Order: sequence, then C-alpha cells, then structure tokens
Amino acid sequence: MKLHQLGEFGLIHHFAPRFLQHLPPDIQGIGDDCAIMPYKDEHSLLVTTDMLIENVHFLTSKISPEDLGHKSLAVNLSDIAAMGGRPLYAFLSIGLPPTLEVSWLDRFFDGLEKLAKEENVLLLGGDTTSSLSGFIVNIVILGEAKNSQIKKRSQAVAGDLICCTGPLGSSGAGLKVLLEDLPIDEMTEVLVHSHHHPRPHLKEGQWLAAHPAVHAMIDVSDGIDSDVRRLMEQSHCGAEIDLNQLPLTTNLIKASERFGWNVEELAVTAGEDYCLLFTVDPKEYFQLQKEYETYFQSPLPVIGKITSHPLTLLYLGRDRKPVTIQKKGFDHFHKDSLSEVQKAR
Amino acid sequence: MKLHQLGEFGLIHHFAPRFLQHLPPDIQGIGDDCAIMPYKDEHSLLVTTDMLIENVHFLTSKISPEDLGHKSLAVNLSDIAAMGGRPLYAFLSIGLPPTLEVSWLDRFFDGLEKLAKEENVLLLGGDTTSSLSGFIVNIVILGEAKNSQIKKRSQAVAGDLICCTGPLGSSGAGLKVLLEDLPIDEMTEVLVHSHHHPRPHLKEGQWLAAHPAVHAMIDVSDGIDSDVRRLMEQSHCGAEIDLNQLPLTTNLIKASERFGWNVEELAVTAGEDYCLLFTVDPKEYFQLQKEYETYFQSPLPVIGKITSHPLTLLYLGRDRKPVTIQKKGFDHFHKDSLSEVQKAR
Repeated sequence: MKLHQLGEFGLIHHFAPRFLQHLPPDIQGIGDDCAIMPYKDEHSLLVTTDMLIENVHFLTSKISPEDLGHKSLAVNLSDIAAMGGRPLYAFLSIGLPPTLEVSWLDRFFDGLEKLAKEENVLLLGGDTTSSLSGFIVNIVILGEAKNSQIKKRSQAVAGDLICCTGPLGSSGAGLKVLLEDLPIDEMTEVLVHSHHHPRPHLKEGQWLAAHPAVHAMIDVSDGIDSDVRRLMEQSHCGAEIDLNQLPLTTNLIKASERFGWNVEELAVTAGEDYCLLFTVDPKEYFQLQKEYETYFQSPLPVIGKITSHPLTLLYLGRDRKPVTIQKKGFDHFHKDSLSEVQKAR
Repeated sequence: MKLHQLGEFGLIHHFAPRFLQHLPPDIQGIGDDCAIMPYKDEHSLLVTTDMLIENVHFLTSKISPEDLGHKSLAVNLSDIAAMGGRPLYAFLSIGLPPTLEVSWLDRFFDGLEKLAKEENVLLLGGDTTSSLSGFIVNIVILGEAKNSQIKKRSQAVAGDLICCTGPLGSSGAGLKVLLEDLPIDEMTEVLVHSHHHPRPHLKEGQWLAAHPAVHAMIDVSDGIDSDVRRLMEQSHCGAEIDLNQLPLTTNLIKASERFGWNVEELAVTAGEDYCLLFTVDPKEYFQLQKEYETYFQSPLPVIGKITSHPLTLLYLGRDRKPVTIQKKGFDHFHKDSLSEVQKAR
C-alpha cells in the first residue's frame, strides 16, 4: 500500500503504537501539541518540531524570505503556546539548494531572528545541508511549563464551553488569494499577511494556563474541524460548533462576499490561524472572559460546547439547525491536497 | 552570491554570529557536537540534530530501509557520544513522498526502533509531512551529561596525544564500493556494512568522559582531516597526525590494495566512521589505554598530538616526513561533492 492511500491520519494511526511503548508515567510522547518530559523545580520540558518543505508548505515565489523565517518559527511557538508554555531554545535544520542566493538566506534569518528576540527564544544551533529539491526547514523548540498549569488536549469535560482567541479563516483566505492569483489590494493584502505572518498566541496561552477553569487547549493549525476532532479523540467526548459565533474579521466577511467564498466553511476547515482553541468550565466563563478582555483588549467568544457523545462533531447553522461542512481539513498525503499547492507552482 | 560559491564552511562562518548573540554563560550554542543547556542535579541537557535527504545523503536504491532507520538515529547518537553524554529522547520529522510504500516505512522504523531500544532512547514524537522530492528525515536527540564530565572541542591542550576509538576509512570505502558499483563479495560487503550501519560509540564516550585526563572530544563524521581542524579551531592549537598509526582494518587494507585506493587518504578524508577522536594528557595515556583495552577489549591507538601552532595541521608519512593530503573532507555545498552522490542516481 502507498502512503497516499493510507492518508495522513491513517499514517499517524498506523505508526502511533511505535511511539507509545513503555513510556514512564511522567513522560508524554505524541498525541498533543508538544511532548512533555520531567525538567526542574516543578516544571516540565516541552518539545515540539515542525518541518516545512518548499512547494508543499510554501512557494518562494509567493512569500518573502523574512515572512518565511517568521512563519517557520511562529508555527512551532504556537505549539508551545497551546500547552500554556514558555519557549526557551530553538534549533534549526535547513536543507539548501546550492544555487540559493546568500542574501535570500540572510533575509530568512532576519525574519526568524526578529521573532526569536521578541519572544525571548535563544537560537542555539542545528544542521545545514544541501538539498537538490528546494528549501527545507525543520525547527525544534524546547520550552517549559509549570506542571500544575500544563493544558492538554485530553482535559476537555462534557459541558465545557469551547472558546477561541481568534480570528478564524483569514489565513485560509490569504492562501486562496495566493493560489487563485486574485488581485492584491488593501483588502486581500491583509488576508495574505495573516497567512504569511501568523502571531503565535504565547501570552494568551500563558495567561489561560494560569486559570484552572481552562481545561483542554490546542492551537488552530489544520482548521478547527480537524483540531476539535483531535480534542474529542483525546478527551473521549463530542462537540457542537455554532457557525454563527465564529470570530471573523470584517475584512474577511467583505472579501468572502466579493469573491463568493463560503466564509464559515473557510473559517472551519482552512487552518493556519495559529490562535488558540480551548474549553472552559461554563460556571467560570463570564469571569474569565471579563478578565481576558480587560487584559488583552480583545474578545473571547464562545464558539460551541463539549458534549458527551464520543467523536460526534455537530455544526449548528442558522436557527441552530445542524448543517454539514464539506471539506475535512488538510491531508498532507491526499492527492487533492497536494495538487492544491502544486497548482500554484 | 550563491551558496555553492560560499561553501559549507563559509556558510557556517557567515551565519554563526546570528547564533552566538547574548548567550548566558551556562549555555553553549553552535561550535560543538551538541548544544549545552542547564538541566537538573548537576547535569546539563545536550541537544543535537541532523537532517538527511534522499539523493544527497543516501540512495534508497543502495541502502535498505532498516539500515537507513538505524543510520539516521546513529549519526545523532554519535554526537551525544562525542560529549560524553547519555541519550534520553528522540524526535523525528519525516518528509514522505506520497507514492512511498507503507511497508518500506515500516522497515525504516524497525531499524530505527531497534537501535533506540538498544541505547535506551525514547522515541517521543515529531512531525510527518509530504515531500515532492524524496524521503527526508530530521532527527533531534536530547541527552544529558554530568557538568563536570562534558568533553568539548575546545579543551585540547598543546602536548596532548590524539587518540581514536577507530577504525577509520571503512565507511568511506563502503561508499566508494557503492558509488563505483564495485562487485559485492565478502570483502566489500563488510565495507558497505560499515557505511550503512555505523555503531555510535556511546559506551566509549561515557567511559572516556569519566576520565579527567581526557580533554577534548569529537566524533568522526566528516573525516579526521575536517574533524581535527574543528578541534584546532575551538582549542586554538595545531595538530600532527601520523599516517602510519591510523587504525585500519585488515579488510580495508586488502581492499585498498585490490582496488588501488590510497588507504591513508581515504581514512583521513572520507568520514562517516562515527568513532570518537579525543585528546589526552600524555602522562596519563598508558594507564588510560590499559584500562580501556581491558574494559572494551579493543585497541586505543595514538594517531598524533596537539601542537601549539594555531590552525596548522601536519601529516607525517613514512619516516615521519611531512606529506600532503589531497581531499579536504566533504563540503555539502561544493559542486564536486554534490556530483559525487548524484553520479550514482
């Protein structure tokens, strides 16, 4: 059998048992945004890694080297944010085409370093090698979190409200603008920027982690359709998402009207928003919301709730009637997903 | 300027300053086999990472998936060995062509897991993604070492003897057998096995680390010509290598006679031996050698000495007369190096 027949989630299920053997109780491997290991002074060590490959995850004709450097680090920092952690160290492996311009790589590092400084991450090393087929970057982040404050995907409880530090869909819309070669103007530029320059919600993650009323947390990388399913799987529960409550920017709503996009579907399935989705004790929500909105000057919308129906994800549309969402997130090993990026080569 | 004009070492020097800014005194970034960070109970955390790319570092037509899995992990473990450390956790990012056979990947994991179990390394996670251009694997290892026992490249002292846990050259000879499509028989098979199935010298590294007479240490990855230069650079010293003392297997000597290879040049420049090279206080060498040979039932040859002439590497040939070695290690960004691997595609 070939990998594309198995699909990304089939692949993960096939290989997961190899990563779950004989782990001591204080160590957690796959199954969350970061692996968790014992560290020091009642803190755990968090580790996350992401590989980005040219023409699969990005097109150098479409993204500036500064933005690519920023985004490569940001997507990893977002995983640390999702556990409520603080990033410490970064390690960078890069595969470089020998014909690459040194100045391009300098600009890539400028973008990466700027974010690293802003977030107090020390860039400590890595590996450089040549690549015969485009630019490849793998980043590993080590971070830490207080043992009592780590937020896992497995901690959702039936009845919890689902909240989101939003907004959703703008990044996916930015990708659409790029792939469909839509005109770049004031409106579309904002969307493309959301796609190329995501902000990891580290401060939000750390703030939420300090609140025991916050139960499960995950970052929105593949679209909440995929990401909520991951919470459900780890927490053995179901969920309802109210499509009327999704946090959408006015700019995205206007762009969707202009280009005829289904904005709810985009917001739910397109992914790469890198905001945080979490569940919270409903009794504590209003107090949390008040404090959050005062502190961050940003809304904290409820977009749904956790149910006790295992692995059942229900979408509510107009008048809270169930609706069906078409696309099921991004599958790296499915032909349609691949061709979507390849189209734009 | 293009990368191949800058070369691998030019590239590292160009970008090194970005990795060396504002580091606290208890943290060491690039410049050694591993980065070093504070950990717990008088131990430091060691981190190393290596990226291997199909058709640059290996040819799937030449290496079995089991051996590739083994080697991907082994080259990283060798970096932990070089600091005298103990490996703890491994993280694996893989880029997978969608047409790859699932059974091939299963066999890759079999090889990787076997070594992980043998060396007590927990495989805790990573990232999977699709690749449009061959198999890519990036492995990160976290390890630990006692602060008082960490062996750095910078600790060589003029007058130190240079020793090697050898043997040298067999791996490079194995690569030659593959690239030149030489007949596979009893003799050449052993060489190919050395190239495909290196043993990380973890036990040797830990044993040597416990001896204060051992000063600087490095693993032999790019050939001792490159690796001794790295020691010299970090320790601000020079070195003499006695070509008559290189640890060579009888099999390699016979193969070199048969195929007309310059065995000393191969042993010094071909690399990928993944044994350890270290410097030792000459007054303590004989005692160390006696204990080592008793413990490991394996020789511990002196292959040279550290001199006080900064960055001067001298090779001694017959009658201890200086000789010149032609090839200067493997440069990932130099056209000749690349074409050497591409030839065999």
